[in-house]
Amino acid sequence: MRERTFVLAPDSFKESMTAKEVCTAMEAGLRKIYPEATYIHIPMADGGEGTVQSLVDASGGEIHDLEVAGPLGQPVMAQFGILGDGRTAAIEMASASGIQRVDKAERNPLITTTYGTGELILECLNRGIRKIIIGIGGSATNDGGAGMAEALGARFMDDAGDLLPRGGASLGRLASVDVSGLDERLQQVQLIVACDVTNPLCGEQGASAVFGPQKGATPGMVQQLDANLAHYAAVVKQQLHKDVRDLPGAGAAGGLGAGLMIFTQATLQKGIEIVIEYTELQQKLEQADFVFTGEGGIDFQTKFGKTPYGVARTAKASGKKVIALAGYIGEGIETLYAEGIDAVFGIVPGASSLEKLLADGPANVERTCENIARLLKLAE
Amino acid sequence: MRERTFVLAPDSFKESMTAKEVCTAMEAGLRKIYPEATYIHIPMADGGEGTVQSLVDASGGEIHDLEVAGPLGQPVMAQFGILGDGRTAAIEMASASGIQRVDKAERNPLITTTYGTGELILECLNRGIRKIIIGIGGSATNDGGAGMAEALGARFMDDAGDLLPRGGASLGRLASVDVSGLDERLQQVQLIVACDVTNPLCGEQGASAVFGPQKGATPGMVQQLDANLAHYAAVVKQQLHKDVRDLPGAGAAGGLGAGLMIFTQATLQKGIEIVIEYTELQQKLEQADFVFTGEGGIDFQTKFGKTPYGVARTAKASGKKVIALAGYIGEGIETLYAEGIDAVFGIVPGASSLEKLLADGPANVERTCENIARLLKLAE
Repeated sequence: MRERTFVLAPDSFKESMTAKEVCTAMEAGLRKIYPEATYIHIPMADGGEGTVQSLVDASGGEIHDLEVAGPLGQPVMAQFGILGDGRTAAIEMASASGIQRVDKAERNPLITTTYGTGELILECLNRGIRKIIIGIGGSATNDGGAGMAEALGARFMDDAGDLLPRGGASLGRLASVDVSGLDERLQQVQLIVACDVTNPLCGEQGASAVFGPQKGATPGMVQQLDANLAHYAAVVKQQLHKDVRDLPGAGAAGGLGAGLMIFTQATLQKGIEIVIEYTELQQKLEQADFVFTGEGGIDFQTKFGKTPYGVARTAKASGKKVIALAGYIGEGIETLYAEGIDAVFGIVPGASSLEKLLADGPANVERTCENIARLLKLAE
Repeated sequence: MRERTFVLAPDSFKESMTAKEVCTAMEAGLRKIYPEATYIHIPMADGGEGTVQSLVDASGGEIHDLEVAGPLGQPVMAQFGILGDGRTAAIEMASASGIQRVDKAERNPLITTTYGTGELILECLNRGIRKIIIGIGGSATNDGGAGMAEALGARFMDDAGDLLPRGGASLGRLASVDVSGLDERLQQVQLIVACDVTNPLCGEQGASAVFGPQKGATPGMVQQLDANLAHYAAVVKQQLHKDVRDLPGAGAAGGLGAGLMIFTQATLQKGIEIVIEYTELQQKLEQADFVFTGEGGIDFQTKFGKTPYGVARTAKASGKKVIALAGYIGEGIETLYAEGIDAVFGIVPGASSLEKLLADGPANVERTCENIARLLKLAE
C-alpha cells in the first residue's frame, strides 16, 4: 500500500490549544502508526476567535502588535496578522474592541467604541495592505462602527458642529457626518468581513436588542441605543446616500457591520468560507486519504458554520473521509454524519476537572489520534 | 464482503453498568453501521465484584438471594448464582462478608466473621451443587476463614472446651479444632477460588499487615491479628496436619484463602482465568472479526489480571483484533498494545461530573461504538 496522506484541519480548542498546536498533536499521534505518511497542517478557524492566528499559521505569515484605544479609550496592545503573501492582513475587532477588554463591572455599551479597530485598519493602510480580512465577533461596542470610521478620518458632529463623544449614547445627537477627511486609501482596499449573523441594524432583531444585554445594556439602554442607531442610519442615508439599516449583517458587532458597509469597500462573507478560501483548504485536500478536523466542542450547532462542518463539507465535495475530534461532544452529533463527518471521537480520558482537561489537551489529542490510526491500520 | 461477527466481552463499568449492559450498549452502537452482523455477548469479570453476575449472564443461569449472617453477625441478604448447567454455583464472599456491609465507623476486623460466606457454601451443598466458584475480594474479615468453617460444621474451642466467639480476636485462645461435624458433602465438591493475590497468611506480607488497615485495624490490632493467625495455623498444622501458613494466597481475604484450603477441596486460580474458562471465551472468539472489551478504568494496572488484559491475551492467541473501551483512561496504556489490545477509546464526551458520566454510561458506550464502527467501515 502506498504511503498515506493525512490532512489535519482542526479549529483551535478554546482555552486549551491553538489550531496549530492541535495539528502538531494530531500528527504526533498518527505518526506513531504511520511514520512514513505525509502530514499537511491546515490550522483552521471559523471567523471567530483564532481566525487571525489560523490565517497567519496557514499562510506562513506573521502576527504584529499595535497599541490602540480599547473599548473605553484605554490603551490596549492589539494584534493583527500579515499573511504569507505580504499583501493581505487579518484583523479581529475583538483584539482592539472586544468584550474581554472590559471588566464585567465596567461594561457599558453607551460609551464603548470601535475606535481601536479603526486604528488597526489604519495601520494596515499604512503598510500598503490591499486586502483586509476582518473578524467582528466578540465586540464590547454598540456604536455602529462610528468610532472605527473616526479613526480613519470621518467626523461625527452635533448640531452645533462639535465632535460627538465616542460611544453609542451620543449618536442620538448626530446632526452631520463629514467624510471629507476619510482616508482615501480605503477606496483601494477590499475589506472582507467574516460575519455569520444576519441581524439588521435596528429593531427587535437589531444590534442593540439582541446583543446589547451581553455587553452590559439594561433594558433602558437597549431602547436608547436602538433609537440612536436608527437615527444614525437615517442621517447617513440622507447625507451619504447609503441605506444600510436593514441589510443583513448590519447589526453585527454593535453595528460595526453597518459602519464597515458605509465607510469602506466591505463585503460580508461567512467566516468559515473565508478561512477555507484563504487557507486553500480545497486544493490541499486533494491529496488526502483522511482528513482530520475538530474543535473544543462539537454538537448540533456545529453545522451552523463551525469549522468541522466547513471542513467536512469541503472534504465531502472531493469524496474525502473525515474524522473529527472534540473535547466535548454534545447533543445531536448524529446530524453531522450526513454533512460529511464520518466519525467523531472525544479526546477526554475520563472524569476530570475542566482545568486539567484544558492543560492535557495535546496529550489527549495525541492519544486519541494514535488509537484512531491503530484502528485504521487494523481495518486495512 | 461477508457479514461480520463481533464478540463483545467487556467487564462491568463499576457503579455505571453491568457487563451485560455494556454488551447491550456496544451492540446498539455497532448495529447502526453493521445491522446484519452477528453479535456474541460475553459479559466478563475478573474474579472481583461482578463475577457472579458475569458467570450467570454468560451461562444463562440465575441469581438467588439468601439471608445470612453479615460480617458483624447482623442478618444480610446475600446473593449467589447458579450457572446455566445447574450444577455449578458462583459466590462472592463480599456479598455476605464484604467491607461494604459494615459502616465505616463500625469496621473492626477483631470481630468480623466469614460465617455468612460459609452459609452460602452450605446452601450450595443443600442444592446439590458439585462445583463452586468463589470470589474472595472485598472482605471485611480477618478470621482465617474460621467463621466460614464453623457454618459448615467445624468447631473452634478454647482450652476449657468452650466455643470461641467469632472473629479474629478470639483465635489467639484457640486450643482445639473439631472437624468431626464438618459437612461431609464438602469432600465431593470442588471449590475454585478466584484469587489474584499471593500473600501468605502471616508476617509482613500476611493478611493482617497488608489488608488489615483497610478493614479498620489499628497498628496494635494488626499485631494481635497477625499473632492470632499464626497461632491458628500452628494449631491446625498440629491437629489437622495441614500446613497452609506460607502457601501463596493463604492470606487472601483475611485468611479465608487459608480457611478454604484447610476445610474444603479448594484450588486457587486467577480470577480472570476462571471467568475466561467458564464463559468459554476462547471457543466463542473463534468466529470473531473484532473483539470488543472494556472496563470502567484502563491503565497500566490493567495488565495485572484485569478483564481487558485477559480478553486481549486470549484473543491475540487466536489472532483476533481487539478494541477496548474505558470510562477512564489512565497512565501507561501504551504498554497494553503489546498485550493484544489494538486500540483503546475513552467513552467520556467531555468535562462532566462523575455522577452524570456514570448515569450516561450506556449512551456513551453506544456513541463510541457507533463511531468506531463508522471508522472501521471507512477503512474497509
